[in-house]
Amino acid sequence: MALRARALYDFNSENPGEISVKENEVVTLYSEQDIEGWLEGVNSSGERGLFPASYVEILKNDPTPPYNNSTSGDGYQGQGTRYSNIPTGGLDASYKIQVDNFTKTPASSFSTFNAPAQHQQNYQISQGSDDDWDDDWDDSSTVADEPGVVGGRLQDYDGNGPSTYRVSTSSMSRGGNAQQAKSSATVSRNLNRFSTFVKSGGEAFVLGEASGFVKDGDKICVVMGQYGPEWQENPYPFSCTIDDPTKQTKFKGMKSYISYKLTPTHTQSQVNRRYKHFDWLYARLVEKFPVISVPHIPEKQAAGRFEEDFISKRRKGLIWWMNHMTSHPVLARCDVFQHFLACNSTDEKAWKQGKRKAEKDEMVGANFFLTISTPAAPLDLQEVDSKIDGFKAFTKKMDDSVLQVNATINEFARKQITGFKKEYQKVGQSFKALGQAFELDQQAYSVGLNQAIAYTAEAYDAIGDYFAEQPRQDLDPVMDLLALYQGHLANYPDIIHVQKGALTKVKESQKHVEEGKMEGPQADGVNERCNIISFATLAEIQHFHQIRVRDFKAQMQHYLLQQIGFFHKITSKLEEALHKYDDA
Amino acid sequence: MALRARALYDFNSENPGEISVKENEVVTLYSEQDIEGWLEGVNSSGERGLFPASYVEILKNDPTPPYNNSTSGDGYQGQGTRYSNIPTGGLDASYKIQVDNFTKTPASSFSTFNAPAQHQQNYQISQGSDDDWDDDWDDSSTVADEPGVVGGRLQDYDGNGPSTYRVSTSSMSRGGNAQQAKSSATVSRNLNRFSTFVKSGGEAFVLGEASGFVKDGDKICVVMGQYGPEWQENPYPFSCTIDDPTKQTKFKGMKSYISYKLTPTHTQSQVNRRYKHFDWLYARLVEKFPVISVPHIPEKQAAGRFEEDFISKRRKGLIWWMNHMTSHPVLARCDVFQHFLACNSTDEKAWKQGKRKAEKDEMVGANFFLTISTPAAPLDLQEVDSKIDGFKAFTKKMDDSVLQVNATINEFARKQITGFKKEYQKVGQSFKALGQAFELDQQAYSVGLNQAIAYTAEAYDAIGDYFAEQPRQDLDPVMDLLALYQGHLANYPDIIHVQKGALTKVKESQKHVEEGKMEGPQADGVNERCNIISFATLAEIQHFHQIRVRDFKAQMQHYLLQQIGFFHKITSKLEEALHKYDDA
Repeated sequence: MALRARALYDFNSENPGEISVKENEVVTLYSEQDIEGWLEGVNSSGERGLFPASYVEILKNDPTPPYNNSTSGDGYQGQGTRYSNIPTGGLDASYKIQVDNFTKTPASSFSTFNAPAQHQQNYQISQGSDDDWDDDWDDSSTVADEPGVVGGRLQDYDGNGPSTYRVSTSSMSRGGNAQQAKSSATVSRNLNRFSTFVKSGGEAFVLGEASGFVKDGDKICVVMGQYGPEWQENPYPFSCTIDDPTKQTKFKGMKSYISYKLTPTHTQSQVNRRYKHFDWLYARLVEKFPVISVPHIPEKQAAGRFEEDFISKRRKGLIWWMNHMTSHPVLARCDVFQHFLACNSTDEKAWKQGKRKAEKDEMVGANFFLTISTPAAPLDLQEVDSKIDGFKAFTKKMDDSVLQVNATINEFARKQITGFKKEYQKVGQSFKALGQAFELDQQAYSVGLNQAIAYTAEAYDAIGDYFAEQPRQDLDPVMDLLALYQGHLANYPDIIHVQKGALTKVKESQKHVEEGKMEGPQADGVNERCNIISFATLAEIQHFHQIRVRDFKAQMQHYLLQQIGFFHKITSKLEEALHKYDDA
Repeated sequence: MALRARALYDFNSENPGEISVKENEVVTLYSEQDIEGWLEGVNSSGERGLFPASYVEILKNDPTPPYNNSTSGDGYQGQGTRYSNIPTGGLDASYKIQVDNFTKTPASSFSTFNAPAQHQQNYQISQGSDDDWDDDWDDSSTVADEPGVVGGRLQDYDGNGPSTYRVSTSSMSRGGNAQQAKSSATVSRNLNRFSTFVKSGGEAFVLGEASGFVKDGDKICVVMGQYGPEWQENPYPFSCTIDDPTKQTKFKGMKSYISYKLTPTHTQSQVNRRYKHFDWLYARLVEKFPVISVPHIPEKQAAGRFEEDFISKRRKGLIWWMNHMTSHPVLARCDVFQHFLACNSTDEKAWKQGKRKAEKDEMVGANFFLTISTPAAPLDLQEVDSKIDGFKAFTKKMDDSVLQVNATINEFARKQITGFKKEYQKVGQSFKALGQAFELDQQAYSVGLNQAIAYTAEAYDAIGDYFAEQPRQDLDPVMDLLALYQGHLANYPDIIHVQKGALTKVKESQKHVEEGKMEGPQADGVNERCNIISFATLAEIQHFHQIRVRDFKAQMQHYLLQQIGFFHKITSKLEEALHKYDDA
């Protein structure tokens, strides 16, 4: 069956591997399943390549029933790309540029030591070779399950290398519940339906279009803390270990995957999860929570998925992810995450039940804001604006410096593994040759010296190995941390965009009231709802700063401790060598 | 006055800067004073350049009185080059190749860190710009004062870079006392008058042509020690410090030179010496002592002679040299060295007196062997032969490995000064940038972290400096030691050549006796004198091994101690940084 789609907008290819399409052009698809927001197909000129899934509508020939997921109606179109993340106002042009910069990751950052091979691997992903996506779910919600677009992904095609974590604008999926058909407000609607503000549900909420029944259990509180608005702490904090990644097979060995053992401290009961479970959960969270920075899960990888290094690296990435999930007062407590942690996946019925419930959750996007309760005293709009601007400047600077640190320590690691090791081992080899030459002297009194020199040679050889092994102990964890934060930093432009969009609506409504086009109470409603968004945004920023300080402090301490241990080890080895000369 | 010389042999130029001359060709000289065995002049084809001084005889037009130094008769011709060091037999061809290899010093070995500039500087030396040679002595012995030829020097012209120490074949000057005119022996004379065996006086002595009055004070004893023949220990051991190199001027500031303060422990009286005094002494010692490896003095340098680095480096070289002089039972006690150490150079009369006495010393070269007394039991010739061969193999291997160590640690030092420093400081800079970004967060609780990160950045910057400063502490002294030993290793081919030459004469005389061409007692005399040379050679080899073991043990210990201190310093810095996070 030839699968076809019609272009909704013009798309001009900008990178190798992409093809251009014109509005209304019909393209032939290889699969209706997009990969990270991109579809592969052939355009009317016969060119084969990739284009954004959100720029086309798939032409359905078969009368398949509508998706049982309420968000699936505009499923593909909800899968925006970074191109759709065009601010409608409020964000100045430079910040737009910055948004793009966030998603640009030079080859040296993010990339693991054996990065060169990964570009190819990423391309393979887009051809559907990642087994994690080969085996479909048991229900028809597969397409809607696709996680959000990975904004940074585009760079994979112009040679900037892959990111370990998905760098997402989180600008997709969220729009599902916006119910854009309704339009009762006098405050004008944004024309750009790809605006994050629109898609996140922020606009619908501010305009008073969101509605839903908020159970007590769903209530999320923002409280005034020492440093401003913050999420109410999780009264039942917990953590969760991720251990024993093991290779599993199904279909009589035809399909293989890696299973991780998760043990949350609050249940003390182990569950097994696959990468695709994490991926599914991530998609749910991104859809459900606007203005919350959902930590990115480690990047998918097609080739070498069962290699020890990759498994170890992914596990570390998942541990970081889990740490950020359990540390977040809102994310940690949400139902879908609890289902993910608690439900034993071998109990298929219970798992599916929870899965469907999560996918039918109505309190996502715009409705999420309904669940937030804030302190009574409203925030000062000007002060909020200034705080958000300050944070925007901070994220820019932090992103720059994180990129720099990442590139520097990546290179530092490489030098230690190659150059430093070589230099020390060459010194060892030259000492060894000297000792061997001395052995030719046939003098009894030189035996001790010759042995001591031979030992010194071995010591330098060992020190060379120490240098090569060290980055795994100290620099790798720092790079893992930086990658996670790069994900968060990539989330914030959208979060800020939602808040700024709400603020713009407040100003518009005030103007409308002045012009007599809107009733006071209606404008007050807009103002109140904007206040909720501002509270939530500031709480999220506060949370970000707090875990950032916690994480970077811990990681710098860990790094320095490892470095101290490393130099101690070298010193001990040299001291051993020195003692060999005592009786020489 | 046009100074001219006639070529005694063909010389074919092999390197840039040299010119070819044919036997009997008359060349015009720029100066009759050779530089390291080379003269500069214009040949009959009008080409200007260098040729070996030993290949020409200077055509004297003026009736100057003969030099008051008995060695000056064949002064120039005694200034051989490495080309004149052609074995007459006994040394196999491969060893000849090895001898040449000894004098080849790759740019990376020997050279100091700022070596690139030195090639040019060395060329300047040959143009007489080194002030050490500008101001003549106050008597007419200047030409004879020239130190021995620097065999390795030839490489300076083909871009192999200079050596810090002169690498000499010591094959010159020694021949002065050979009194080759006399020929009473039936054992045939070597045809090659450039043979070290001939020039050192070895041949003359073995043939019984040496004669002189040996005072008791001149007696040098070889005794049988635990490990074979050895020089009798110096009953009055002493050492000598070299301090405070200071710039002095004379001729109202027209001429400058560096003066060193020498304080020998046995006199406790300080004397001031210039480089030219060391150089003069070195020439005396090389002339006086065949089969003793006179340590090479640090290389001359024209440009930058008054730069702190050069002065410091030369002083260290002189300290090593002094250490080897005072450690040697024969060299330490000889009159000329004692005069050098004890006579205050401000007492010009006493200094000149001792200087003239040294230059008139008759117990040099062939006559030196007259001063040696050995144990009564003669050595087994075969055993000596085997020991000498073993030592020859040892020196080859040691020379190779010393070259390798030198090249390796030179590069290691360079890497630490450049690459290692850069890597650590780049890490510091990236941490600094991160800390600065974090300062934008305007959160009170992050101040401690930001300060700790800033301190960590400084720590890595400091560690970068530590790496750059370290080679001066540990690798430089090792390189100084290696350079000194490269000098010794370059001396040994000649020493071995003298011993092998003597052995050949013994075999020849035995054959002559068998053939009835020589009386038994005459052959016994040859044998006895060869025995003296063997005793001296083995004693010298034994001494070499003992100081080698002593020096390398001490230097490896020093190196390791410095390295341990270095890594301790890094560790302390990192620990300081770590503690900054305690209250962060």
